Amino acid sequence: MTVARILDKARARGLRVATAESCTGGLISGALTEVAGSSDVVDRGFVTYSNAAKQAMLGVQADTLDAHGAVSEQVAREMAEGALARSDAQLAVSVTGIAGPGGSEHKPEGRVCFGLAMTGQPTHVETQDFGAIGRAQVRAATVARALDLLEAALDA
Amino acid sequence: MTVARILDKARARGLRVATAESCTGGLISGALTEVAGSSDVVDRGFVTYSNAAKQAMLGVQADTLDAHGAVSEQVAREMAEGALARSDAQLAVSVTGIAGPGGSEHKPEGRVCFGLAMTGQPTHVETQDFGAIGRAQVRAATVARALDLLEAALDA
Repeated sequence: MTVARILDKARARGLRVATAESCTGGLISGALTEVAGSSDVVDRGFVTYSNAAKQAMLGVQADTLDAHGAVSEQVAREMAEGALARSDAQLAVSVTGIAGPGGSEHKPEGRVCFGLAMTGQPTHVETQDFGAIGRAQVRAATVARALDLLEAALDA
Repeated sequence: MTVARILDKARARGLRVATAESCTGGLISGALTEVAGSSDVVDRGFVTYSNAAKQAMLGVQADTLDAHGAVSEQVAREMAEGALARSDAQLAVSVTGIAGPGGSEHKPEGRVCFGLAMTGQPTHVETQDFGAIGRAQVRAATVARALDLLEAALDA
């Protein structure tokens, strides 16, 4: 199980994890806390559904939102780095995407941008186009990819 | 579906919702954002898994944590009121509990304290003892009760 491995690896390295979520609305932190004993690894989560929340809770810049839109690698980067800076964690994952149905900001349904920030490392960002597979499916695929990014960072 | 009714009722009253979660780890905000169009109602969520997060993100007092423990109506009250004060929402629900397995703080597995804060209203707090029904089941019961509290507040 991915979550159990993430918790074990983070624990072994003495690292704590934070999350910054938009389209998944808390499901990544929900998944990370499925397992008993997760409290020594999971520090906190920021569910920044509104743009105002992204700015106030994570320090995402208004200029970045204006220039690139909420669903962008630039915003994902600022979310992940903001979560790292505003928590006791050394590893933070962020997601911002269009779960649908329907696209927005001239971007397609199913597009999700991810950020992965780790103390002392360059921040990784990426975009996944999951397609118009349905809201619940986009959110589930986003959770799975975010967990994979966390595990990969802990393996590196 | 409870979530769709909550969103409709909040929208009709022009109210926005915030969440403050400990043992559910984001599953309440995850549920509230299951439905497309939730973004005009759901403002943000605070996943305050650690005590440090409860203090930093929601303003829970160290004295309150020391005197009553994290799983207490006093902490649930400060979490809900903190979420209201630190968001653009007019309605906030909080949960802090022991999902288990095993109890802690001399409190039984399955105990969850809830807070419901609404602008201009006295804050409601309550304790539910769901019992040793299993971690996933305690968390699911907690989400269901939190949604019921939100809907009841919107009906009042």
